[in-house]
Amino acid sequence: MTVRFGLLAFPGVQQLDLTAPYEIFASMEGAEVHLVWKDTSPIVSATKLVLQPTTSFAACPSLDVICVPGGSGVNALLEDETVLSFIRAQAAQARFITSVCTGSLVLGAAGLLKGRKATTHWNARDFLAEFGAIATPGRVVRDGNLFTAGGVTAGIDFGLTIVAALRDQAEAEAIQLSLEYAPAPPFHSGSPEEAPADVLIETKRRLAGSRTAREAIMARLAARRHQAG
Amino acid sequence: MTVRFGLLAFPGVQQLDLTAPYEIFASMEGAEVHLVWKDTSPIVSATKLVLQPTTSFAACPSLDVICVPGGSGVNALLEDETVLSFIRAQAAQARFITSVCTGSLVLGAAGLLKGRKATTHWNARDFLAEFGAIATPGRVVRDGNLFTAGGVTAGIDFGLTIVAALRDQAEAEAIQLSLEYAPAPPFHSGSPEEAPADVLIETKRRLAGSRTAREAIMARLAARRHQAG
Repeated sequence: MTVRFGLLAFPGVQQLDLTAPYEIFASMEGAEVHLVWKDTSPIVSATKLVLQPTTSFAACPSLDVICVPGGSGVNALLEDETVLSFIRAQAAQARFITSVCTGSLVLGAAGLLKGRKATTHWNARDFLAEFGAIATPGRVVRDGNLFTAGGVTAGIDFGLTIVAALRDQAEAEAIQLSLEYAPAPPFHSGSPEEAPADVLIETKRRLAGSRTAREAIMARLAARRHQAG
Repeated sequence: MTVRFGLLAFPGVQQLDLTAPYEIFASMEGAEVHLVWKDTSPIVSATKLVLQPTTSFAACPSLDVICVPGGSGVNALLEDETVLSFIRAQAAQARFITSVCTGSLVLGAAGLLKGRKATTHWNARDFLAEFGAIATPGRVVRDGNLFTAGGVTAGIDFGLTIVAALRDQAEAEAIQLSLEYAPAPPFHSGSPEEAPADVLIETKRRLAGSRTAREAIMARLAARRHQAG
């Protein structure tokens, strides 16, 4: 039976958030994987890789799995009703609602995290509560049909988790073996807890531009919720 | 100082072999990353992701790092003199000659592995000796200015290793942290030694088409070498 995956492919996406689960989903027997955006013009990722959406919001079939990757481009999506409506509509009928990295903030802005356990990139965890989510540590966090992954490379662990949940563990294991996923990081700097203190400071400095812009957006969203409330 | 990376972007590339090191290279301060192919028409990966070469062989600047990813599309490159000549010319002046997954077979066909330690995807290791390479276990194998990585996801460990060798460990650690690379595979099936026996059989079955075609090519190359010798 065909399983339809749709990954949101937006300007400023962190391409590895998308391409890692893509490779896993597309390796699953019977998978059909779409890159979805407003239209099918090529988009440019945060690190300047060009990606080609395969379908538009209007033409996109009903998805079994909707997946929102993260990246600095997330900022523009948090107040984009066209995007949020598309996600809400797909989420209403999808088997699994999912995200990688800061993609969970977009799920939050769409109202899909209220009262649910979720995670995101370590540098964005404090934003989750603003969407009513229960910020939860974990490389992949499941709450019912909601799966959220940590930052960027967590998308690999996430992809395998999704395949196991959709199909079975043997299918995930076959894909893990074909992708030779037996990681051996040469350094120990993959989380704020583990990274040397000066590396954490430098990394936060590099991420500060996107983070500052995001704080301003979050403040606007909070003010709007307050008015509406 | 700018560091120029060039990743070979060919039809049938395993896109994650390319996109994982791409994300790491492009995250390095001062990096300029090119996707190189014969021309700049879009190419389609093994799992149908469309990638856009940024430069042609003819227009490609001198690269500091030449990187050949793997994938079923490697087969067509092993006897393609246009590709092999381009790689040889870049390799002659590059600081680092590199590959991910079965990309090392292309380096081998270009004559760049003779007498050198190298690795590749677990399902292609036995081919290395045919190119005069010393097949060497390891997620990332360095022999002088030659760096070869294991299958697909080894490209992450490889990318960080390259950044540390080019710049320093702190730069690699900052990128590791920004990509939250603290892997936590949900299953233990990332190598033939670790995978359940039935999963290994099933995975070999899935890879058999590309492997059989490769065996025929390797036999032709061996016959040609025999005639030439």
